[in-house]
Amino acid sequence: MHPGKQTFENKREKLYAIIFESDTVGGKRFDIALIITIMLSVIVVMVDSVSEINETYGSLLYFVEWFFTILFSIEYILRLISIGKPAHYAKSFFGIIDLLSILPTYVSLFIPGSQNLIAIRILRVLRIFRILKLVQYMYESRVLMRALHASRRKIEVFLFTVLILAIIFGSLMYLIEGEENGFTSIPRGVYWAIVTLTTVGYGDISPKTGPGQALAAVIMIMGYGIIAVPTGIVTVELSHAGKREHNRVCSECSTEIDDPGAKYCKNCGWKL
Amino acid sequence: MHPGKQTFENKREKLYAIIFESDTVGGKRFDIALIITIMLSVIVVMVDSVSEINETYGSLLYFVEWFFTILFSIEYILRLISIGKPAHYAKSFFGIIDLLSILPTYVSLFIPGSQNLIAIRILRVLRIFRILKLVQYMYESRVLMRALHASRRKIEVFLFTVLILAIIFGSLMYLIEGEENGFTSIPRGVYWAIVTLTTVGYGDISPKTGPGQALAAVIMIMGYGIIAVPTGIVTVELSHAGKREHNRVCSECSTEIDDPGAKYCKNCGWKL
Amino acid sequence: MHPGKQTFENKREKLYAIIFESDTVGGKRFDIALIITIMLSVIVVMVDSVSEINETYGSLLYFVEWFFTILFSIEYILRLISIGKPAHYAKSFFGIIDLLSILPTYVSLFIPGSQNLIAIRILRVLRIFRILKLVQYMYESRVLMRALHASRRKIEVFLFTVLILAIIFGSLMYLIEGEENGFTSIPRGVYWAIVTLTTVGYGDISPKTGPGQALAAVIMIMGYGIIAVPTGIVTVELSHAGKREHNRVCSECSTEIDDPGAKYCKNCGWKL
Amino acid sequence: MHPGKQTFENKREKLYAIIFESDTVGGKRFDIALIITIMLSVIVVMVDSVSEINETYGSLLYFVEWFFTILFSIEYILRLISIGKPAHYAKSFFGIIDLLSILPTYVSLFIPGSQNLIAIRILRVLRIFRILKLVQYMYESRVLMRALHASRRKIEVFLFTVLILAIIFGSLMYLIEGEENGFTSIPRGVYWAIVTLTTVGYGDISPKTGPGQALAAVIMIMGYGIIAVPTGIVTVELSHAGKREHNRVCSECSTEIDDPGAKYCKNCGWKL
Repeated sequence: MHPGKQTFENKREKLYAIIFESDTVGGKRFDIALIITIMLSVIVVMVDSVSEINETYGSLLYFVEWFFTILFSIEYILRLISIGKPAHYAKSFFGIIDLLSILPTYVSLFIPGSQNLIAIRILRVLRIFRILKLVQYMYESRVLMRALHASRRKIEVFLFTVLILAIIFGSLMYLIEGEENGFTSIPRGVYWAIVTLTTVGYGDISPKTGPGQALAAVIMIMGYGIIAVPTGIVTVELSHAGKREHNRVCSECSTEIDDPGAKYCKNCGWKL
Repeated sequence: MHPGKQTFENKREKLYAIIFESDTVGGKRFDIALIITIMLSVIVVMVDSVSEINETYGSLLYFVEWFFTILFSIEYILRLISIGKPAHYAKSFFGIIDLLSILPTYVSLFIPGSQNLIAIRILRVLRIFRILKLVQYMYESRVLMRALHASRRKIEVFLFTVLILAIIFGSLMYLIEGEENGFTSIPRGVYWAIVTLTTVGYGDISPKTGPGQALAAVIMIMGYGIIAVPTGIVTVELSHAGKREHNRVCSECSTEIDDPGAKYCKNCGWKL
Repeated sequence: MHPGKQTFENKREKLYAIIFESDTVGGKRFDIALIITIMLSVIVVMVDSVSEINETYGSLLYFVEWFFTILFSIEYILRLISIGKPAHYAKSFFGIIDLLSILPTYVSLFIPGSQNLIAIRILRVLRIFRILKLVQYMYESRVLMRALHASRRKIEVFLFTVLILAIIFGSLMYLIEGEENGFTSIPRGVYWAIVTLTTVGYGDISPKTGPGQALAAVIMIMGYGIIAVPTGIVTVELSHAGKREHNRVCSECSTEIDDPGAKYCKNCGWKL
Repeated sequence: MHPGKQTFENKREKLYAIIFESDTVGGKRFDIALIITIMLSVIVVMVDSVSEINETYGSLLYFVEWFFTILFSIEYILRLISIGKPAHYAKSFFGIIDLLSILPTYVSLFIPGSQNLIAIRILRVLRIFRILKLVQYMYESRVLMRALHASRRKIEVFLFTVLILAIIFGSLMYLIEGEENGFTSIPRGVYWAIVTLTTVGYGDISPKTGPGQALAAVIMIMGYGIIAVPTGIVTVELSHAGKREHNRVCSECSTEIDDPGAKYCKNCGWKL
């Protein structure tokens, strides 16, 4: 093999370990730097949308915006270079998000009309999900995920029931209250029913007539009882998830692992 | 027996299995098709109630409405034919719902005044409960139902207590705040108390005076503590329901079934 | 002993068993009749406070009101006669409530100005607590009461912490938002903080400035986490209360009672 | 050692035991007196901020204010004297709070402009945290603290996820609803998303368009499911915390302590 090519291959692999993985020192540092940069860029996009700040610090924010765009562009190119299959990455969920988070700033150079383009830039927020990907290495989030995954179907059944109840109650309220009291259509009534069942209660639409308020009271008390169901589901699953996690066994010597945070087997030193 | 009659009886039974049961391939396909049709027709009724859409697509929606009405009419007739006791079905809960969900469209041909008839058509929504009937075959909903059924009486006692508290606090607020602050009658005060105790909090009625706000604060903190009770009840029951379900035993060879999703006994292959 | 006096004493005891106790057939019937009468009279007082109904059916409601007042007066006199120590009853909580629930109607004969007197009549609502007294004989409410009683002190500590947090956050919001945004005084700020921490959220007072909304967001997320605490407390205690109740033992033969609804010991037939 | 100095040293130690500790009779009495005084002074500051009361009882409240300020000043000086390292106390959290709670009243003598200084005086509220310090000696709060501490990291992961969801949904709503419907900037959208996810629901900002209300409904139902997570976490931890606490063992004779409220070992009488 050509020695120059091998050097390149070596470098590519090292780059890959830094950018895509997080079990090396360099990889961890890159991840932390990336998280901070994403958060700062998200704050800039958020702050930029406040019209008073935009008017005063507009040009500064414009400069900072370009700084982050160029930084993320370099990162995007490095990702394309370092990975074995660039096309596969470019078509993946995070590949598209990464591209969408830098494109709007470039496009705004050619097509004026900044307002709508600011909007698209917000998609950069989705890059935060990368952080969630890192979070999943933590013991705590693993237990939470396991509990939510185990209770997934029960919660689906529950949410489906809530939706049907909302359609029925929303339609009933549309009949009782009518358009003159803000229930202008059935979808609006369903929206109101969800606002009420979930105990959010904006008050933008609220029953005015006696029978409407009586039905609303029934829905609220029902919602009060219903909220207990997902809580019960998740609690029971969390209790199981915790227990299962505690009963880990070393895959090398079968010693039971009592410490949930343990990284090595206390008996044989095997990396867990 | 007359062979023609027997053929008819055979066909009737096959039809019955498809329409009323769901353990044959045909029955399952019919159920899924029915669920989709009901949901589409419900969406049409919902969308039709939005005045902007009604003005633009009114004639299209009118046609789609008739399409669903005729479809459900055929289904209703098939149900009457296939079942052994048509009168018994026609008088049952779902029989009446099925009739009420097609009648309004026919009646609207003879009596004009569409607004009120749209209202009655919404009863079609109740047909969604058929889906709930199917849902009860699922393991997840069975556990939920069992837990809710077991905690039924505790929740009744709890809701009764909440209602009495709402009457007492609603009356007190009517005394303290009076008609000039929106508490125009005791029922309205009780409505407000339920809105507050359930933490919905519309804000359409809210205390204005100092003593009123002080009492409201007490009610809110009380409601905060009270919400814990149904959650506790359901959690404990769910925990029991889950355990009982896990301890299923094969009715053929008495082997314990550990996997809740198991369809066959792992020991003797008996269909559970 | 004079036989007439003994007959009276016998009658008094029978009357006492009917009015004050509920383990005889007559006692149970009296209790049920009383509950229905109290509820009807409460509904009359509630309905009477609605001005439209009062204008139309005022004279009918006036008659019904007198009917209930005379009925409760007879009941009050019977209670005084049947009990051994009338003065003790008259001074007890329920004795005072019983008197206050009939007095306003009589007083209204001599002093005109019905509006305020209607108000006092509402105290009749408190008689509903008698029903709660009966409720405590039920298995379900006994378990609930036990759980709430066991978690009493933990909930007190929790509510005290919530109150201190509300004072601190309410004061901070008064500083940040100021009088021009509806936070006219610290008590009003504390009221707002309680409305927010308990997730009621009327919206009658809400932060308008940026820093105010940021602090509000922190308080809301905190309240979101805090609501978990009383739920956790009650759930754990309910789980224990249920277990203790299940481990009942027959006081005659010490057999364990598995069925919580059992009225007789399955071993020796002893009435539990 | 100089006998006078020793007497002083003795007195200093006694003073320290009274002011800083709470296991002597004098220490407990001082603590209770201090709690009552702090609460009264907090009530005075709160009541003083209500403009109607301030106008009528202004001079009385001014006098009471000075009374508390002098009392707390004496306490502050005694604390400085009695403690071994006065500088260490003065720089500690409670040392600064203690100073800040008396300074504003003195400063107001020299610099007029009472409104802002009232504001700073509110910091006295923070002294209530001393009470919380005492509360931690109670069995109930110890169990609660242990449960919250054990679930700390899980709740952090959870709150972080909620924050990211709020940023994403808030940005989406800013795009969908736009400035004309109250979503004037992304931070405001995020504020709205937190108000909705936590089920507070002020209604100061609420979606007006169809797609906005549809997304809001999804967020609400999601928030409904999400609220189950912290509750589940705390419940499971409370259940463990309670068990661990129940399994206390006497440090003298190793007898298990079953009664959580027990102050002495039932076997050997050792003070626990």
